[in-house]
Amino acid sequence: MRLRGRKGIRENLEQQEDLVVLDPRQYKGKWASLFGNDKPIHVEFGMGKGQFISQMSYKHQDVNFIGVDMYDELIRRASEKGRNVWSAEDVVTPPNLKLALMNIENVEEVFEPGELERIYLNFSDPWPKTKHGRRRLTHPRFLDKYRTILNERGQIHFKTDSVSLFEFSLNAFSDYGLQMTNISLDLHREGLNEEFVMTEYETKFVGQGIKIHRCEVIVGQEALSEYKVERLKKYGM
Amino acid sequence: MRLRGRKGIRENLEQQEDLVVLDPRQYKGKWASLFGNDKPIHVEFGMGKGQFISQMSYKHQDVNFIGVDMYDELIRRASEKGRNVWSAEDVVTPPNLKLALMNIENVEEVFEPGELERIYLNFSDPWPKTKHGRRRLTHPRFLDKYRTILNERGQIHFKTDSVSLFEFSLNAFSDYGLQMTNISLDLHREGLNEEFVMTEYETKFVGQGIKIHRCEVIVGQEALSEYKVERLKKYGM
Repeated sequence: MRLRGRKGIRENLEQQEDLVVLDPRQYKGKWASLFGNDKPIHVEFGMGKGQFISQMSYKHQDVNFIGVDMYDELIRRASEKGRNVWSAEDVVTPPNLKLALMNIENVEEVFEPGELERIYLNFSDPWPKTKHGRRRLTHPRFLDKYRTILNERGQIHFKTDSVSLFEFSLNAFSDYGLQMTNISLDLHREGLNEEFVMTEYETKFVGQGIKIHRCEVIVGQEALSEYKVERLKKYGM
Repeated sequence: MRLRGRKGIRENLEQQEDLVVLDPRQYKGKWASLFGNDKPIHVEFGMGKGQFISQMSYKHQDVNFIGVDMYDELIRRASEKGRNVWSAEDVVTPPNLKLALMNIENVEEVFEPGELERIYLNFSDPWPKTKHGRRRLTHPRFLDKYRTILNERGQIHFKTDSVSLFEFSLNAFSDYGLQMTNISLDLHREGLNEEFVMTEYETKFVGQGIKIHRCEVIVGQEALSEYKVERLKKYGM
Protein backbone atom coordinates (compact mmCIF):
# COMPACT_ATOMS: atom_id res chain seq x y z
CA MET A 1 0.00 0.00 0.00
CA ARG A 2 2.93 2.34 0.61
CA LEU A 3 3.84 3.56 -2.83
CA ARG A 4 6.24 6.10 -1.34
CA GLY A 5 7.93 6.26 2.04
CA ARG A 6 5.76 7.31 4.94
CA LYS A 7 7.55 10.61 5.22
CA GLY A 8 6.87 11.40 1.57
CA ILE A 9 3.19 10.67 2.00
CA ARG A 10 2.94 12.83 5.06
CA GLU A 11 4.64 15.75 3.30
CA ASN A 12 2.27 15.33 0.38
CA LEU A 13 -0.74 15.44 2.71
CA GLU A 14 0.60 18.47 4.57
CA GLN A 15 0.62 20.37 1.28
CA GLN A 16 -3.09 19.70 0.77
CA GLU A 17 -4.56 21.76 3.58
CA ASP A 18 -7.50 22.74 1.38
CA LEU A 19 -8.69 19.11 1.26
CA VAL A 20 -6.90 17.00 3.85
CA VAL A 21 -7.39 17.29 7.60
CA LEU A 22 -4.51 15.65 9.46
CA ASP A 23 -5.64 16.60 12.94
CA PRO A 24 -9.43 16.46 12.80
CA ARG A 25 -9.80 16.85 16.59
CA GLN A 26 -9.23 20.59 16.23
CA TYR A 27 -12.47 20.91 14.25
CA LYS A 28 -14.74 19.29 16.81
CA GLY A 29 -17.88 21.45 16.77
CA LYS A 30 -16.35 23.62 14.03
CA TRP A 31 -16.84 21.59 10.85
CA ALA A 32 -19.52 23.97 9.57
CA SER A 33 -17.04 26.86 9.89
CA LEU A 34 -14.40 24.82 8.07
CA PHE A 35 -16.81 24.28 5.17
CA GLY A 36 -17.95 27.87 5.49
CA ASN A 37 -21.67 27.05 5.45
CA ASP A 38 -24.42 25.19 7.31
CA LYS A 39 -25.16 22.44 4.81
CA PRO A 40 -25.75 19.00 6.33
CA ILE A 41 -22.60 16.92 6.85
CA HIS A 42 -22.36 13.33 5.61
CA VAL A 43 -19.39 11.22 6.65
CA GLU A 44 -18.06 7.97 5.24
CA PHE A 45 -16.25 5.89 7.86
CA GLY A 46 -13.59 3.82 6.10
CA MET A 47 -13.64 5.48 2.68
CA GLY A 48 -10.68 3.51 1.28
CA LYS A 49 -9.49 4.99 -2.00
CA GLY A 50 -12.30 7.54 -1.97
CA GLN A 51 -14.31 6.81 -5.12
CA PHE A 52 -17.64 6.87 -3.30
CA ILE A 53 -17.12 10.03 -1.25
CA SER A 54 -15.58 11.88 -4.21
CA GLN A 55 -18.46 11.11 -6.54
CA MET A 56 -21.01 11.84 -3.84
CA SER A 57 -19.45 15.26 -3.20
CA TYR A 58 -19.70 16.08 -6.90
CA LYS A 59 -23.22 14.69 -7.30
CA HIS A 60 -24.69 16.26 -4.15
CA GLN A 61 -23.31 19.76 -3.85
CA ASP A 62 -25.97 20.72 -1.33
CA VAL A 63 -24.24 18.47 1.18
CA ASN A 64 -20.81 18.62 2.84
CA PHE A 65 -18.86 15.36 2.83
CA ILE A 66 -16.08 14.07 5.03
CA GLY A 67 -14.19 10.95 4.04
CA VAL A 68 -12.53 9.23 6.98
CA ASP A 69 -9.76 6.68 6.99
CA MET A 70 -6.93 5.75 9.34
CA TYR A 71 -4.27 5.09 6.68
CA ASP A 72 -2.40 8.09 5.29
CA GLU A 73 -1.73 6.35 1.98
CA LEU A 74 -5.47 5.95 1.47
CA ILE A 75 -6.02 9.61 2.30
CA ARG A 76 -3.43 10.46 -0.34
CA ARG A 77 -5.11 8.30 -2.95
CA ALA A 78 -8.53 9.67 -2.07
CA SER A 79 -7.17 13.21 -2.38
CA GLU A 80 -6.17 12.51 -5.98
CA LYS A 81 -9.52 10.91 -6.67
CA GLY A 82 -11.40 13.78 -5.04
CA ARG A 83 -9.68 16.41 -7.17
CA ASN A 84 -9.98 14.30 -10.34
CA VAL A 85 -13.70 13.79 -9.97
CA TRP A 86 -14.14 17.54 -9.76
CA SER A 87 -11.76 18.39 -12.58
CA ALA A 88 -9.59 16.39 -14.97
CA GLU A 89 -6.87 18.99 -14.52
CA ASP A 90 -6.18 17.94 -10.95
CA VAL A 91 -5.87 21.37 -9.38
CA VAL A 92 -9.36 22.04 -8.12
CA THR A 93 -10.34 22.26 -4.46
CA PRO A 94 -13.65 20.42 -4.07
CA PRO A 95 -15.62 22.96 -2.01
CA ASN A 96 -17.77 20.44 -0.08
CA LEU A 97 -15.25 17.66 0.59
CA LYS A 98 -12.73 17.05 3.36
CA LEU A 99 -10.63 13.96 3.97
CA ALA A 100 -9.87 13.26 7.60
CA LEU A 101 -7.09 11.02 8.93
CA MET A 102 -8.38 9.35 12.06
CA ASN A 103 -9.37 6.15 13.81
CA ILE A 104 -13.12 5.61 13.96
CA GLU A 105 -12.72 4.53 17.58
CA ASN A 106 -12.24 8.23 18.32
CA VAL A 107 -15.21 9.75 16.50
CA GLU A 108 -16.52 11.37 19.65
CA GLU A 109 -13.28 13.37 19.96
CA VAL A 110 -13.73 14.68 16.42
CA PHE A 111 -17.45 15.40 16.18
CA GLU A 112 -19.77 17.22 18.57
CA PRO A 113 -23.08 15.58 19.49
CA GLY A 114 -25.50 16.21 16.62
CA GLU A 115 -22.81 17.54 14.27
CA LEU A 116 -23.43 14.93 11.53
CA GLU A 117 -26.54 14.11 9.50
CA ARG A 118 -25.55 10.89 7.85
CA ILE A 119 -22.97 8.13 8.27
CA TYR A 120 -22.03 5.90 5.35
CA LEU A 121 -20.52 2.50 6.09
CA ASN A 122 -19.48 0.88 2.83
CA PHE A 123 -17.83 -2.55 2.67
CA SER A 124 -16.46 -2.28 6.17
CA ASP A 125 -14.07 -4.98 7.33
CA PRO A 126 -16.29 -7.98 8.20
CA TRP A 127 -13.95 -9.21 10.97
CA PRO A 128 -15.26 -12.74 10.46
CA LYS A 129 -13.91 -14.28 13.66
CA THR A 130 -16.40 -14.18 16.52
CA LYS A 131 -13.75 -12.93 18.94
CA HIS A 132 -13.28 -9.84 16.73
CA GLY A 133 -17.00 -9.02 16.71
CA ARG A 134 -16.45 -5.85 18.73
CA ARG A 135 -14.30 -4.42 15.94
CA ARG A 136 -17.12 -4.53 13.37
CA LEU A 137 -18.27 -0.99 12.62
CA THR A 138 -21.89 -1.96 13.20
CA HIS A 139 -21.30 -3.41 16.66
CA PRO A 140 -23.59 -1.78 19.24
CA ARG A 141 -20.61 -0.12 20.89
CA PHE A 142 -20.11 1.84 17.66
CA LEU A 143 -23.87 2.42 17.30
CA ASP A 144 -23.63 4.15 20.69
CA LYS A 145 -21.07 6.56 19.27
CA TYR A 146 -22.97 7.13 16.03
CA ARG A 147 -26.20 7.91 17.84
CA THR A 148 -24.40 10.61 19.81
CA ILE A 149 -22.82 12.43 16.88
CA LEU A 150 -25.85 12.20 14.54
CA ASN A 151 -28.47 14.96 14.54
CA GLU A 152 -32.29 14.85 14.53
CA ARG A 153 -32.33 13.94 10.85
CA GLY A 154 -29.58 11.38 11.35
CA GLN A 155 -29.36 8.15 9.36
CA ILE A 156 -26.82 5.39 8.78
CA HIS A 157 -26.54 3.98 5.26
CA PHE A 158 -24.79 0.64 5.20
CA LYS A 159 -23.77 -1.64 2.35
CA THR A 160 -21.60 -4.71 2.10
CA ASP A 161 -21.01 -7.83 0.04
CA SER A 162 -20.33 -9.84 3.20
CA VAL A 163 -23.30 -12.05 4.07
CA SER A 164 -21.96 -12.64 7.57
CA LEU A 165 -21.37 -8.94 8.28
CA PHE A 166 -24.80 -8.05 6.91
CA GLU A 167 -26.44 -10.69 9.06
CA PHE A 168 -24.53 -9.47 12.12
CA SER A 169 -25.47 -5.88 11.34
CA LEU A 170 -29.20 -6.53 10.82
CA ASN A 171 -29.23 -8.19 14.23
CA ALA A 172 -27.18 -5.40 15.79
CA PHE A 173 -29.42 -2.62 14.41
CA SER A 174 -32.53 -4.55 15.38
CA ASP A 175 -31.28 -5.48 18.84
CA TYR A 176 -30.21 -1.88 19.37
CA GLY A 177 -33.82 -0.84 18.73
CA LEU A 178 -33.04 1.18 15.61
CA GLN A 179 -35.57 1.46 12.80
CA MET A 180 -34.31 -0.15 9.60
CA THR A 181 -35.77 0.56 6.18
CA ASN A 182 -35.12 -0.15 2.51
CA ILE A 183 -33.37 -3.40 3.32
CA SER A 184 -31.99 -4.98 0.15
CA LEU A 185 -30.39 -8.40 -0.19
CA ASP A 186 -29.37 -7.75 -3.79
CA LEU A 187 -29.00 -4.05 -4.47
CA HIS A 188 -28.31 -4.43 -8.17
CA ARG A 189 -30.92 -7.13 -8.85
CA GLU A 190 -32.67 -5.04 -11.49
CA GLY A 191 -29.45 -4.20 -13.27
CA LEU A 192 -27.16 -1.47 -12.11
CA ASN A 193 -28.94 0.88 -9.80
CA GLU A 194 -27.68 4.27 -10.90
CA GLU A 195 -29.34 5.98 -7.99
CA PHE A 196 -26.56 4.73 -5.75
CA VAL A 197 -22.97 5.82 -6.18
CA MET A 198 -20.66 2.82 -6.10
CA THR A 199 -17.42 2.20 -4.25
CA GLU A 200 -14.33 0.63 -5.87
CA TYR A 201 -15.12 -2.73 -4.26
CA GLU A 202 -18.71 -2.53 -5.38
CA THR A 203 -17.84 -1.91 -9.04
CA LYS A 204 -15.59 -4.95 -8.93
CA PHE A 205 -18.00 -7.21 -7.03
CA VAL A 206 -21.00 -6.36 -9.19
CA GLY A 207 -18.92 -7.23 -12.24
CA GLN A 208 -18.28 -10.64 -10.67
CA GLY A 209 -21.96 -11.24 -9.94
CA ILE A 210 -21.50 -10.92 -6.16
CA LYS A 211 -24.61 -9.64 -4.42
CA ILE A 212 -24.53 -6.34 -2.58
CA HIS A 213 -26.57 -6.05 0.63
CA ARG A 214 -27.75 -2.67 1.84
CA CYS A 215 -29.96 -1.06 4.43
CA GLU A 216 -30.78 2.33 5.84
CA VAL A 217 -31.04 2.91 9.56
CA ILE A 218 -33.03 5.79 10.93
CA VAL A 219 -31.53 7.32 14.04
CA GLY A 220 -32.83 10.89 14.51
CA GLN A 221 -36.36 11.67 15.70
CA GLU A 222 -37.16 14.01 12.82
CA ALA A 223 -35.99 11.41 10.30
CA LEU A 224 -38.18 8.88 12.10
CA SER A 225 -41.27 11.06 11.76
CA GLU A 226 -40.67 11.49 8.03
CA TYR A 227 -40.15 7.78 7.64
CA LYS A 228 -43.48 7.06 9.31
CA VAL A 229 -45.28 9.20 6.73
CA GLU A 230 -43.51 7.28 3.93
CA ARG A 231 -44.41 3.97 5.49
CA LEU A 232 -48.07 4.94 5.59
CA LYS A 233 -47.98 5.64 1.86
CA LYS A 234 -46.11 2.41 1.10
CA TYR A 235 -48.60 0.02 2.64
CA GLY A 236 -51.73 2.14 2.40
CA MET A 237 -52.41 1.56 6.07
CA MET B 1 -51.78 -33.43 -6.24
CA ARG B 2 -55.14 -35.25 -6.17
CA LEU B 3 -54.18 -38.87 -5.78
CA ARG B 4 -57.83 -39.81 -5.27
CA GLY B 5 -61.05 -38.06 -6.27
CA ARG B 6 -62.06 -35.08 -4.11
CA LYS B 7 -64.93 -37.02 -2.62
CA GLY B 8 -62.63 -39.86 -1.58
CA ILE B 9 -60.30 -37.44 0.14
CA ARG B 10 -63.11 -35.73 1.99
CA GLU B 11 -64.46 -39.06 3.21
CA ASN B 12 -60.98 -40.04 4.37
CA LEU B 13 -60.64 -36.77 6.31
CA GLU B 14 -64.10 -37.16 7.86
CA GLN B 15 -62.98 -40.47 9.33
CA GLN B 16 -60.05 -38.81 11.10
CA GLU B 17 -61.93 -36.68 13.63
CA ASP B 18 -59.22 -37.35 16.22
CA LEU B 19 -56.66 -35.46 14.12
CA VAL B 20 -58.34 -33.48 11.35
CA VAL B 21 -60.52 -30.42 11.89
CA LEU B 22 -62.64 -29.77 8.81
CA ASP B 23 -64.60 -26.85 10.25
CA PRO B 24 -62.09 -25.05 12.48
CA ARG B 25 -64.43 -22.06 13.02
CA GLN B 26 -66.37 -24.07 15.59
CA TYR B 27 -63.30 -24.16 17.86
CA LYS B 28 -62.72 -20.42 18.00
CA GLY B 29 -61.84 -19.75 21.64
CA LYS B 30 -62.11 -23.48 22.38
CA TRP B 31 -58.84 -24.94 21.10
CA ALA B 32 -57.58 -25.55 24.63
CA SER B 33 -60.69 -27.65 25.35
CA LEU B 34 -60.20 -29.57 22.12
CA PHE B 35 -56.64 -30.44 23.19
CA GLY B 36 -57.90 -31.02 26.72
CA ASN B 37 -55.19 -28.92 28.38
CA ASP B 38 -53.75 -25.41 28.64
CA LYS B 39 -50.40 -25.94 26.93
CA PRO B 40 -49.33 -23.12 24.60
CA ILE B 41 -50.58 -23.46 21.03
CA HIS B 42 -48.20 -23.16 18.07
CA VAL B 43 -49.64 -22.98 14.55
CA GLU B 44 -47.99 -23.46 11.18
CA PHE B 45 -49.73 -21.51 8.44
CA GLY B 46 -49.25 -23.37 5.17
CA MET B 47 -47.91 -26.67 6.50
CA GLY B 48 -47.85 -28.42 3.11
CA LYS B 49 -47.26 -32.13 3.54
CA GLY B 50 -46.81 -31.73 7.27
CA GLN B 51 -43.25 -32.93 7.96
CA PHE B 52 -42.39 -29.92 10.10
CA ILE B 53 -45.53 -29.80 12.23
CA SER B 54 -45.50 -33.59 12.71
CA GLN B 55 -41.92 -33.69 13.90
CA MET B 56 -42.40 -30.62 16.07
CA SER B 57 -45.40 -32.21 17.77
CA TYR B 58 -43.35 -35.30 18.57
CA LYS B 59 -40.29 -33.35 19.66
CA HIS B 60 -42.10 -30.77 21.81
CA GLN B 61 -44.83 -32.60 23.69
CA ASP B 62 -45.25 -29.69 26.09
CA VAL B 63 -46.78 -27.69 23.26
CA ASN B 64 -49.99 -28.14 21.24
CA PHE B 65 -49.60 -27.83 17.49
CA ILE B 66 -52.04 -26.96 14.75
CA GLY B 67 -51.04 -27.45 11.12
CA VAL B 68 -53.07 -25.30 8.75
CA ASP B 69 -53.54 -25.66 5.03
CA MET B 70 -56.28 -24.84 2.55
CA TYR B 71 -55.94 -27.97 0.40
CA ASP B 72 -57.68 -31.12 1.57
CA GLU B 73 -55.16 -33.36 -0.20
CA LEU B 74 -52.35 -31.77 1.81
CA ILE B 75 -54.32 -32.26 5.02
CA ARG B 76 -54.67 -35.93 4.07
CA ARG B 77 -50.96 -36.33 3.42
CA ALA B 78 -50.09 -34.49 6.62
CA SER B 79 -52.45 -36.76 8.55
CA GLU B 80 -50.47 -39.80 7.38
CA LYS B 81 -47.20 -38.09 8.22
CA GLY B 82 -48.47 -36.98 11.61
CA ARG B 83 -49.47 -40.51 12.61
CA ASN B 84 -46.31 -42.04 11.16
CA VAL B 85 -44.01 -39.73 13.07
CA TRP B 86 -45.70 -40.80 16.28
CA SER B 87 -45.80 -44.49 15.46
CA ALA B 88 -44.68 -46.64 12.57
CA GLU B 89 -47.87 -48.65 12.97
CA ASP B 90 -50.01 -45.82 11.67
CA VAL B 91 -52.85 -46.08 14.15
CA VAL B 92 -51.83 -43.61 16.83
CA THR B 93 -53.60 -40.34 17.60
CA PRO B 94 -50.92 -37.71 18.22
CA PRO B 95 -52.23 -36.13 21.43
CA ASN B 96 -50.91 -32.60 20.77
CA LEU B 97 -51.53 -32.24 17.04
CA LYS B 98 -54.50 -31.07 14.99
CA LEU B 99 -54.65 -30.41 11.28
CA ALA B 100 -57.05 -27.67 10.25
CA LEU B 101 -58.49 -27.12 6.78
CA MET B 102 -58.85 -23.38 6.27
CA ASN B 103 -57.78 -20.30 4.37
CA ILE B 104 -55.32 -18.14 6.28
CA GLU B 105 -57.30 -15.08 5.19
CA ASN B 106 -59.84 -16.16 7.79
CA VAL B 107 -57.61 -16.74 10.83
CA GLU B 108 -59.57 -14.25 12.90
CA GLU B 109 -62.71 -16.37 12.47
CA VAL B 110 -60.87 -19.42 13.76
CA PHE B 111 -58.79 -18.08 16.65
CA GLU B 112 -59.74 -15.79 19.51
CA PRO B 113 -57.49 -12.82 20.27
CA GLY B 114 -54.53 -14.13 22.26
CA GLU B 115 -55.37 -17.79 21.63
CA LEU B 116 -52.00 -18.63 19.98
CA GLU B 117 -48.45 -18.37 21.27
CA ARG B 118 -46.46 -18.91 18.13
CA ILE B 119 -46.96 -18.76 14.38
CA TYR B 120 -44.63 -20.64 12.04
CA LEU B 121 -44.37 -19.47 8.45
CA ASN B 122 -42.18 -21.91 6.52
CA PHE B 123 -41.42 -21.52 2.83
CA SER B 124 -44.57 -19.54 2.17
CA ASP B 125 -45.44 -18.77 -1.44
CA PRO B 126 -43.16 -15.84 -2.41
CA TRP B 127 -45.73 -14.33 -4.82
CA PRO B 128 -42.88 -12.74 -6.76
CA LYS B 129 -44.93 -10.28 -8.80
CA THR B 130 -45.22 -6.86 -7.16
CA LYS B 131 -48.96 -6.75 -7.84
CA HIS B 132 -49.41 -9.89 -5.73
CA GLY B 133 -47.50 -8.43 -2.76
CA ARG B 134 -50.64 -8.34 -0.62
CA ARG B 135 -50.91 -12.12 -0.83
CA ARG B 136 -47.53 -12.73 0.84
CA LEU B 137 -48.11 -14.11 4.32
CA THR B 138 -45.76 -11.52 5.81
CA HIS B 139 -47.58 -8.54 4.30
CA PRO B 140 -48.59 -6.03 7.01
CA ARG B 141 -52.27 -6.83 6.44
CA PHE B 142 -51.49 -10.38 7.68
CA LEU B 143 -49.26 -9.04 10.46
CA ASP B 144 -52.35 -7.17 11.67
CA LYS B 145 -54.21 -10.46 11.97
CA TYR B 146 -51.29 -12.29 13.59
CA ARG B 147 -50.83 -9.60 16.21
CA THR B 148 -54.46 -9.99 17.20
CA ILE B 149 -54.49 -13.76 17.63
CA LEU B 150 -51.08 -14.02 19.35
CA ASN B 151 -50.81 -13.82 23.13
CA GLU B 152 -48.41 -11.94 25.42
CA ARG B 153 -45.65 -14.44 24.72
CA GLY B 154 -46.41 -14.38 21.01
CA GLN B 155 -43.72 -14.79 18.35
CA ILE B 156 -43.58 -15.41 14.62
CA HIS B 157 -40.86 -17.77 13.34
CA PHE B 158 -40.28 -17.37 9.65
CA LYS B 159 -38.02 -19.22 7.22
CA THR B 160 -37.71 -19.28 3.46
CA ASP B 161 -35.28 -19.97 0.65
CA SER B 162 -36.67 -17.04 -1.34
CA VAL B 163 -34.32 -14.05 -1.22
CA SER B 164 -37.03 -11.73 -2.51
CA LEU B 165 -39.63 -12.91 0.02
CA PHE B 166 -37.10 -12.66 2.86
CA GLU B 167 -36.16 -9.14 1.81
CA PHE B 168 -39.82 -8.15 1.57
CA SER B 169 -40.51 -9.71 4.96
CA LEU B 170 -37.60 -8.04 6.78
CA ASN B 171 -38.88 -4.71 5.50
CA ALA B 172 -42.47 -5.57 6.40
CA PHE B 173 -41.59 -6.64 9.98
CA SER B 174 -39.35 -3.62 10.39
CA ASP B 175 -41.83 -1.15 8.89
CA TYR B 176 -44.56 -2.65 11.04
CA GLY B 177 -42.47 -1.81 14.10
CA LEU B 178 -41.97 -5.41 15.20
CA GLN B 179 -38.81 -6.49 16.99
CA MET B 180 -36.79 -8.98 14.94
CA THR B 181 -34.13 -11.22 16.41
CA ASN B 182 -31.90 -14.15 15.46
CA ILE B 183 -31.91 -13.09 11.82
CA SER B 184 -30.00 -15.64 9.73
CA LEU B 185 -29.12 -15.35 6.05
CA ASP B 186 -27.81 -18.91 5.94
CA LEU B 187 -29.40 -21.06 8.60
CA HIS B 188 -27.34 -24.16 7.86
CA ARG B 189 -24.01 -22.37 7.40
CA GLU B 190 -22.31 -24.36 10.12
CA GLY B 191 -23.56 -27.68 8.81
CA LEU B 192 -27.01 -28.97 9.52
CA ASN B 193 -28.52 -27.16 12.43
CA GLU B 194 -30.24 -29.95 14.32
CA GLU B 195 -31.86 -27.51 16.68
CA PHE B 196 -34.36 -26.64 13.94
CA VAL B 197 -36.82 -29.17 12.57
CA MET B 198 -36.83 -29.06 8.77
CA THR B 199 -39.66 -28.96 6.27
CA GLU B 200 -39.79 -31.14 3.12
CA TYR B 201 -38.68 -28.18 0.99
CA GLU B 202 -35.86 -27.38 3.37
CA THR B 203 -34.45 -30.93 3.32
CA LYS B 204 -34.41 -30.76 -0.48
CA PHE B 205 -32.99 -27.22 -0.74
CA VAL B 206 -30.25 -27.77 1.81
CA GLY B 207 -29.19 -30.82 -0.18
CA GLN B 208 -28.90 -28.59 -3.24
CA GLY B 209 -26.82 -25.99 -1.41
CA ILE B 210 -29.61 -23.38 -1.45
CA LYS B 211 -29.40 -21.00 1.49
CA ILE B 212 -32.21 -20.87 4.02
CA HIS B 213 -33.09 -17.48 5.52
CA ARG B 214 -34.76 -17.28 8.89
CA CYS B 215 -35.81 -14.80 11.53
CA GLU B 216 -37.83 -14.60 14.69
CA VAL B 217 -40.27 -11.78 15.30
CA ILE B 218 -41.31 -10.85 18.79
CA VAL B 219 -44.91 -9.75 19.06
CA GLY B 220 -46.12 -10.12 22.64
CA GLN B 221 -45.10 -7.78 25.47
CA GLU B 222 -43.94 -10.55 27.78
CA ALA B 223 -41.82 -12.08 25.02
CA LEU B 224 -40.37 -8.61 24.40
CA SER B 225 -39.34 -8.23 28.03
CA GLU B 226 -37.60 -11.61 28.00
CA TYR B 227 -35.86 -10.72 24.77
CA LYS B 228 -34.52 -7.53 26.30
CA VAL B 229 -32.85 -9.50 29.07
CA GLU B 230 -31.26 -11.81 26.48
CA ARG B 231 -30.06 -8.84 24.44
CA LEU B 232 -28.37 -7.37 27.47
CA LYS B 233 -26.43 -10.61 27.96
CA LYS B 234 -25.53 -10.86 24.28
CA TYR B 235 -23.82 -7.50 23.98
CA GLY B 236 -22.80 -7.00 27.58
CA MET B 237 -24.34 -3.56 27.55
